[in-house]
Amino acid sequence: MSNVDVFMWEFLGTTILCLLGNGSVAAVVLKNSYSHGTGGDWIIIVLGWGFGVFAGASIAAPSGAHINPAVSLAVAISGGIPWSTLPVYWAAQMLGGIAGASLCWAAFKLQFDNMDDNSGTRGIFCTTPFVKGLPWNMATEVIATFVLVFFILTNPQANGALSYGAVTFVIITIGFGLGGPTGYAVNPARDLGPRIAYWFLPIKGKAGPDWSYSWVPVFGPLLGAALAAGLGLLVM
Amino acid sequence: MSNVDVFMWEFLGTTILCLLGNGSVAAVVLKNSYSHGTGGDWIIIVLGWGFGVFAGASIAAPSGAHINPAVSLAVAISGGIPWSTLPVYWAAQMLGGIAGASLCWAAFKLQFDNMDDNSGTRGIFCTTPFVKGLPWNMATEVIATFVLVFFILTNPQANGALSYGAVTFVIITIGFGLGGPTGYAVNPARDLGPRIAYWFLPIKGKAGPDWSYSWVPVFGPLLGAALAAGLGLLVM
Amino acid sequence: MSNVDVFMWEFLGTTILCLLGNGSVAAVVLKNSYSHGTGGDWIIIVLGWGFGVFAGASIAAPSGAHINPAVSLAVAISGGIPWSTLPVYWAAQMLGGIAGASLCWAAFKLQFDNMDDNSGTRGIFCTTPFVKGLPWNMATEVIATFVLVFFILTNPQANGALSYGAVTFVIITIGFGLGGPTGYAVNPARDLGPRIAYWFLPIKGKAGPDWSYSWVPVFGPLLGAALAAGLGLLVM
Amino acid sequence: MSNVDVFMWEFLGTTILCLLGNGSVAAVVLKNSYSHGTGGDWIIIVLGWGFGVFAGASIAAPSGAHINPAVSLAVAISGGIPWSTLPVYWAAQMLGGIAGASLCWAAFKLQFDNMDDNSGTRGIFCTTPFVKGLPWNMATEVIATFVLVFFILTNPQANGALSYGAVTFVIITIGFGLGGPTGYAVNPARDLGPRIAYWFLPIKGKAGPDWSYSWVPVFGPLLGAALAAGLGLLVM
Repeated sequence: MSNVDVFMWEFLGTTILCLLGNGSVAAVVLKNSYSHGTGGDWIIIVLGWGFGVFAGASIAAPSGAHINPAVSLAVAISGGIPWSTLPVYWAAQMLGGIAGASLCWAAFKLQFDNMDDNSGTRGIFCTTPFVKGLPWNMATEVIATFVLVFFILTNPQANGALSYGAVTFVIITIGFGLGGPTGYAVNPARDLGPRIAYWFLPIKGKAGPDWSYSWVPVFGPLLGAALAAGLGLLVM
Repeated sequence: MSNVDVFMWEFLGTTILCLLGNGSVAAVVLKNSYSHGTGGDWIIIVLGWGFGVFAGASIAAPSGAHINPAVSLAVAISGGIPWSTLPVYWAAQMLGGIAGASLCWAAFKLQFDNMDDNSGTRGIFCTTPFVKGLPWNMATEVIATFVLVFFILTNPQANGALSYGAVTFVIITIGFGLGGPTGYAVNPARDLGPRIAYWFLPIKGKAGPDWSYSWVPVFGPLLGAALAAGLGLLVM
Repeated sequence: MSNVDVFMWEFLGTTILCLLGNGSVAAVVLKNSYSHGTGGDWIIIVLGWGFGVFAGASIAAPSGAHINPAVSLAVAISGGIPWSTLPVYWAAQMLGGIAGASLCWAAFKLQFDNMDDNSGTRGIFCTTPFVKGLPWNMATEVIATFVLVFFILTNPQANGALSYGAVTFVIITIGFGLGGPTGYAVNPARDLGPRIAYWFLPIKGKAGPDWSYSWVPVFGPLLGAALAAGLGLLVM
Repeated sequence: MSNVDVFMWEFLGTTILCLLGNGSVAAVVLKNSYSHGTGGDWIIIVLGWGFGVFAGASIAAPSGAHINPAVSLAVAISGGIPWSTLPVYWAAQMLGGIAGASLCWAAFKLQFDNMDDNSGTRGIFCTTPFVKGLPWNMATEVIATFVLVFFILTNPQANGALSYGAVTFVIITIGFGLGGPTGYAVNPARDLGPRIAYWFLPIKGKAGPDWSYSWVPVFGPLLGAALAAGLGLLVM
């Protein structure tokens, strides 16, 4: 597959992932939306992100359905893609994260406009730890991403819907089981891309992008993925 | 497949889709129903519509399981059905939307009769934006339908349950991630059909059908589908 | 397959269906249970019954996974089983309903014992319409069972888990979309069997079995199934 | 497969099962977590454990995906593994339970640290009956594990994701339908392993491990599994 095709499918897949995932958080955070205040907020977020992975991965099937720089890193370590392609994956995914977040903003434009106070809207786009403590926040992201990537590496994807459905199920249990402390980025592009978008989008009264934390959901997932790939090489 | 068969299966599938989808909203809106007031209203609606697509699409499998005029348009643009069949699909789907909504009314007849005030029941049948603003409402419907149709076109349906399950998962994430602002029609027949039914059904004290908004959930989805089909032709 | 084998598998499958389904209602109705009062009651009931169908149908796979007299009737009308076997299916299913309900009572024995008032526990075992009105209650059960059986007949079961998963998805949407008014029996054995069990189980202060309504969730589903089988013969 | 490989995969699978399952309870019990207090607590726990089984079983696929001493016992009775391998399975699973619980503690470290009172945290790791009454608690665990194991034995696992998805669906309905009274261990390693971990983990102000109850979630599941295996030998 050409680098252009890799770029295109990863961009499209990550765009759709972040559009739907960011949207699922917007659905419960923003007022003046049918989904707001109807109960089960965390379930909505976890299932929205979970099946959002299904949509994004299905669309990015031609390029291997990574839609996550940490997954691409692990696949490169495992020999699944040449190292020279890794920057193509990463660039496409990061731009997809920005594009998806921007589309999410457009879809919820009137909701953002009708908020009295947008200072709590960063969480729609990117993660913030509930309790800040960088080493432990890092640990949470490393553990969660390790589970995801080790699953992907030991269950290679063979058959479309079934395969992406399987990843979806794992993302859902990671959301329920490991998402509470940090908001489970487990994907640098899903966090940094929308964080950048939040930084430039014209949302009145928004909070800052919190760059001081931004490196944790980038390097935590990359480290977790590298550990999973290392263990994978050892045991398989 | 003959036009009569296309008509029959699309009619049956869309009827069952709208019966179950409208019913899932009725389940939380109408009092005197076991589902009312038990929490997780938006989850009930999103899962009810989502798996309702599964039921409707499975039944309409012989005709390609469109059950959505926007999907039929995109399939026609992509060359999957001849343009001359499009009106057959559209007529069947629209009539199915009316029939399904009417059956939903019958199933919940005693609940409608026992409401003190039916002025808030339009939302059971068709969509109303939470915040009206036609260009942005349109944008939301275009984006949501684009995701659905682009997924369908890039993941052609090969094998029954797995394929319709995949579409169901995508509908679920669209509901969670993009449904809040406008109520996610993403299907002209699912919105206009039940809207017409609501207009003529004998529901005491009902609201008006809001024709002024009715064109958005028709043309928004059609435009989103056309864009998805266009991009599909470009990239595949 | 011998009648003894049919009896055994249908009995086991229906037992497990009713054990899990009744248990899911017990989970939210009975106090002193971790599931009580945690929110999303209707979602718990609908998913519990839905995936309970998956468990029961999977176990009854050797006999065709009916676990529902209405389904057996439709299969007989469609020529899938000889009429002479129908009583074997029905007897096994009805006894399974009684056995499953009794096991559910055993599993929740301490919860029943610790209720101040068991007069509201009939709903754990069998259905009662929220608003009584027999013709319309009948209509709701007919419509809901028609959807289930028409789906089953037009999507014949080929491959285990995928097939029962498909029926599960349809049961879930029926629960959300059509379950509120009457509690969706859609299965005479699932309603009459546990109703009989409730009548004889030693639950202190329990309500009566409401025989006056008991025929609706028996004949409604049978009629809905017969209509679905009739339409199936017509269109396929 | 060598004993070393069996040990490794069962250890890894059970570790990930208990990490995600324990985490799903931590998610709703511990404050200062995004998942806390957002509604649908029991749904979060049941879906978290359910899809956690999917993740753990998928990873333990090479060794047969038992990740549960009760399942290993039933498979040994059924002749699926030699009795001499059973201690290898059991040791790996028990150590995996301890490891998974410890990782869960690490992922939620800051949440534990920020609780005013950790005396209610035992339920994150292991089960306690809502109403104590050992014979009936035992009955509940026997019945629930019987359903799980009889399903597994009568639906032998053939094809990866579909197969583990099927077990997941059954675990979910067991959680909803039979989980309320005792917290559904249905797996000695999932209960005793984390109970041991809870006993030694440095959680300030934690409760005791309640050894007096600890044998019920060990012997109840083993007995339920043995009964299922016995019935399986009889009927198949």
